[in-house]
Amino acid sequence: MQTSEADVSTLENFTFEEIELGQTAEYSKTLTEDDLVLFAAVSGDVNPVHLDAEFARGTMFGERIAHGMYTGGLISAALAMKMPGPGTIYLGQNLKFERPVKLGDEITVHLKVLEKIEGKKFITLDTTATNQHGKTVVSGTATVLAPKQKTRMPAPALPAIEIRR
Amino acid sequence: MQTSEADVSTLENFTFEEIELGQTAEYSKTLTEDDLVLFAAVSGDVNPVHLDAEFARGTMFGERIAHGMYTGGLISAALAMKMPGPGTIYLGQNLKFERPVKLGDEITVHLKVLEKIEGKKFITLDTTATNQHGKTVVSGTATVLAPKQKTRMPAPALPAIEIRR
Repeated sequence: MQTSEADVSTLENFTFEEIELGQTAEYSKTLTEDDLVLFAAVSGDVNPVHLDAEFARGTMFGERIAHGMYTGGLISAALAMKMPGPGTIYLGQNLKFERPVKLGDEITVHLKVLEKIEGKKFITLDTTATNQHGKTVVSGTATVLAPKQKTRMPAPALPAIEIRR
Repeated sequence: MQTSEADVSTLENFTFEEIELGQTAEYSKTLTEDDLVLFAAVSGDVNPVHLDAEFARGTMFGERIAHGMYTGGLISAALAMKMPGPGTIYLGQNLKFERPVKLGDEITVHLKVLEKIEGKKFITLDTTATNQHGKTVVSGTATVLAPKQKTRMPAPALPAIEIRR
């Protein structure tokens, strides 16, 4: 499969106690044609602006673009894979879609801890996704329940996925 | 592939002028094992709570659950496929993750137009996803730029996707 591997080989988390205000983490992935097909399949959104190069040329974007929620998926992956990491419970997310994501764009999710809510063990984070030109494509904030237990494990491998064009 | 087809064979949109306050639409999809693998591949989130049945049995969920943003993807698909439909520009989304989504769950996204902002042609919608038991799994609101031009086309077919386990 042509989808790019995320840059994570070990899953290690930060517990609520370990996480510090202002702590940061990053997570990157590059958009491929296969990603467009897989996101269309899993969401059911088969709009041709994501899948048909010729159709997309006639749109305001001029080429195929990622589904907006593809970048939402990268933000959720950053939270689940990097910080707080495995065991995180996702409670809420605000997303503002600011710029399109195009084939070959390397999207980096930047996480920063904004708030620790002691009683409930909630953490709020700034979640900003930028492209390889440093431009923001999606901005927003997340609220999560941080892990209680420390975890460290190898990142599991996925089965092979083949797309038959 | 075992991912369920969404219930849409024709892509038809509603322009800003056509959309009425209170107008509703629904979009449904059932979570399969393949969806879990495809969402893991496209997002890079390979946490075992989504992929490893034995691991998931030992978690608070007791079984594999969908990535939270899988349901975010269904909400975005509902907006892009059903209402307003093709040509919609996604501007923002708030999501509150209320309950886990499990294998075989049929998730229905319920859209309802809350507001039409005349000058900018923005529309805000209530976006609530429920499971087959009528329980809310994700709630929130979306802001979109509604299509200017009427469109009607057959829904494109996706290439075959094979997962080699």
